[in-house]
Amino acid sequence: MGKGNMKKVLVFGSTGSIGKNSLDVIRQSQGKFNVVGLCVNRDIKNLQRQIKEFSPAYVCVVDQRCADKLEKNLDNKIRLFKGEKGLQKFSTIKTDISVMGISGISCLRPLLINLQYSKRIALANKETIVVAGLFVFKLAKKFGTEIIPVDSEINALFQLFNNIKRDFSKVYITASGGALIDYKKQDLKKIGIKEVLSHPNWRMGRRITVDCATLVNKAFEVIEVHRFFGVPYKEIGVTVHRESVFHALVEFKDSTVFSCCYPPDMKIPIAYALHYPRRAPSVRGGSFDKKFSLSFEPVNYNRYPLFKMVLDAAGKDDNSLIILNACDETVVDYFLAGKIKFTDIYKVMNYIFSNYPSKRLRRIEDIFYWDQWARTKTKEYLLNSGFRVKGQGSRKKNIFTKNQKSGIKL
Amino acid sequence: MGKGNMKKVLVFGSTGSIGKNSLDVIRQSQGKFNVVGLCVNRDIKNLQRQIKEFSPAYVCVVDQRCADKLEKNLDNKIRLFKGEKGLQKFSTIKTDISVMGISGISCLRPLLINLQYSKRIALANKETIVVAGLFVFKLAKKFGTEIIPVDSEINALFQLFNNIKRDFSKVYITASGGALIDYKKQDLKKIGIKEVLSHPNWRMGRRITVDCATLVNKAFEVIEVHRFFGVPYKEIGVTVHRESVFHALVEFKDSTVFSCCYPPDMKIPIAYALHYPRRAPSVRGGSFDKKFSLSFEPVNYNRYPLFKMVLDAAGKDDNSLIILNACDETVVDYFLAGKIKFTDIYKVMNYIFSNYPSKRLRRIEDIFYWDQWARTKTKEYLLNSGFRVKGQGSRKKNIFTKNQKSGIKL
Repeated sequence: MGKGNMKKVLVFGSTGSIGKNSLDVIRQSQGKFNVVGLCVNRDIKNLQRQIKEFSPAYVCVVDQRCADKLEKNLDNKIRLFKGEKGLQKFSTIKTDISVMGISGISCLRPLLINLQYSKRIALANKETIVVAGLFVFKLAKKFGTEIIPVDSEINALFQLFNNIKRDFSKVYITASGGALIDYKKQDLKKIGIKEVLSHPNWRMGRRITVDCATLVNKAFEVIEVHRFFGVPYKEIGVTVHRESVFHALVEFKDSTVFSCCYPPDMKIPIAYALHYPRRAPSVRGGSFDKKFSLSFEPVNYNRYPLFKMVLDAAGKDDNSLIILNACDETVVDYFLAGKIKFTDIYKVMNYIFSNYPSKRLRRIEDIFYWDQWARTKTKEYLLNSGFRVKGQGSRKKNIFTKNQKSGIKL
Repeated sequence: MGKGNMKKVLVFGSTGSIGKNSLDVIRQSQGKFNVVGLCVNRDIKNLQRQIKEFSPAYVCVVDQRCADKLEKNLDNKIRLFKGEKGLQKFSTIKTDISVMGISGISCLRPLLINLQYSKRIALANKETIVVAGLFVFKLAKKFGTEIIPVDSEINALFQLFNNIKRDFSKVYITASGGALIDYKKQDLKKIGIKEVLSHPNWRMGRRITVDCATLVNKAFEVIEVHRFFGVPYKEIGVTVHRESVFHALVEFKDSTVFSCCYPPDMKIPIAYALHYPRRAPSVRGGSFDKKFSLSFEPVNYNRYPLFKMVLDAAGKDDNSLIILNACDETVVDYFLAGKIKFTDIYKVMNYIFSNYPSKRLRRIEDIFYWDQWARTKTKEYLLNSGFRVKGQGSRKKNIFTKNQKSGIKL
């Protein structure tokens, strides 16, 4: 089959977990997809391998130094986009499908641009929906762009809603409980990075794995369910399901429950998003020919105070979730750099969440403003409030002046 | 609401397990259904209570003596149908919905007649589909009659297929494994009636509970799946799921599985069949707010030789399943009467299945012929082949003459 019949694909974050899995799916779907563009932050070593295999016409490296380094060895038939500005240009490439595998809020700008140039977004990023869902869906509607969620729980629900009539009374997403589910609460302060990153079922990026352990990730997914499908919060439940085989369930008012399951392998929802509305053939299958057990139990909310905090934020101000997400991204980076303790994540987020000015959002740029604001405040707080931040002294001080708390202009 | 707006319902087998559950559902759905007719075999004591509560216009008692007994005390505004002939007349009552709760092959004649007079059959009986599925569906199509399966596994699959696109690669129904799943094979010959009737999850009729323990019931359901939905046998799997919460699963070719579950309570599928296409409100719900575990494991076919035998029969001659069903009904009656051992069920069925003449079916009456033939042969074999049949001597003798084995005319 000629490349003309193949679907053009851009992969944002091609050397990350989602990116690699996407390229695996594309490799296994020979003749169906043509990788026209690859975009990474820094990992030019793996990018070079991917370029060799997939021969994209466009490549983007966001980190300027890495971009310059790559440029020297790059075939001059390939167009290279460099830095943040380059990422924005890369996002204007017309394509059939874009895989959005960039993690965190960094995905928002390329997504908002690319929504206007791509026919379909395979969206793995959840922060964009959590902090800017309204903008994202409005833009997608305006440009007729399909958004297919790749995140397993949201993907499973998308699959269910794509089939069933919507006369349900409750929707459940499952939570593995994360790496720390069997630790006692009092032992959490001693937990190291390695323990937190030992997710029982999924191999994912580092930040999302930490967010699984705090259940911030699950609270984000509840918000995604609300934003994607318009399900009221009181009709969204979470059940702890350690085996991560079932991803979403829909309960009808007669007690019947429909559910969607697949083995915990991101290639399955990625293949779904790429092949939709068809289904990709799998070598696996026969899941229920084997012997296995599954468990379901309610979430112990007392054990996961950040779950409640994030959902409280969802029902609060326009900027609450932006603040919490930026704070979470920052503080998790500090934890992953070995600079603070696991339990400090909650402490810092709780402080920031108790001390931010409530503001309405009028335009997309406001999101970036509050994101930056919260990152700065989080770092200041970390430096000034007695947390053990490697290589720096610490002292306690209230970093919020009265003026800042109430008077920042948009 | 006046009775004019209510759906008219006939309940066949109203004092049996399905019948009672149906009347419970109707009682809970006040103002929706009007019970116009009740039909029982013998249990006039419970029937009288039901008449008092539901004031049906028509009543049918199949057992002649019981019918005569009831007649003496019956309000003369109620029309009574008596005996087998009466049942056939009762089956011609025009109605919106008929609940077919008669067990065994006895359901076939009323079903075939009633299909022409009812708009919808809520079908709990499986023997009719197993032995006469082709006739039943042909007739239903001709008269535009809906058949909604009530049997939980088939009902769950009906619900799934009623929603999903049919691009599946495999269908699974679940099996509780029956009351004897944890007994060793060598201990089965000592098993008594009480043990066999102690089904872990479902309260059902006595024969079906025995059929659960032998897995004959599950083999019948596999045949039902084939007949109801046209799924090829090689695409139908069975998974032992002791908790009976999940009833059916559909696996797509990308390894995604959709499933349908509800608590093991027959009122749920009955309510589904009565309220369809709406869903009945339930007081329950929130199933996944609780803590529980589920298990799935492959069927140990070696442990359930009758499962294989019934499925072998499905792929064999036109009359194979009629023979096996009639033999099963007869021999289970003997077991339930304490006349033979549990393990004799297999022995007798194996003998009959190895010694019947293969014949084509040309008309519906052929079904009744072979049903009767197999019952007679089974009883003869039981009497003459050394089984302990209470109150009668036994001697071994080949009951099939060469002529009978090959030459019975239809």
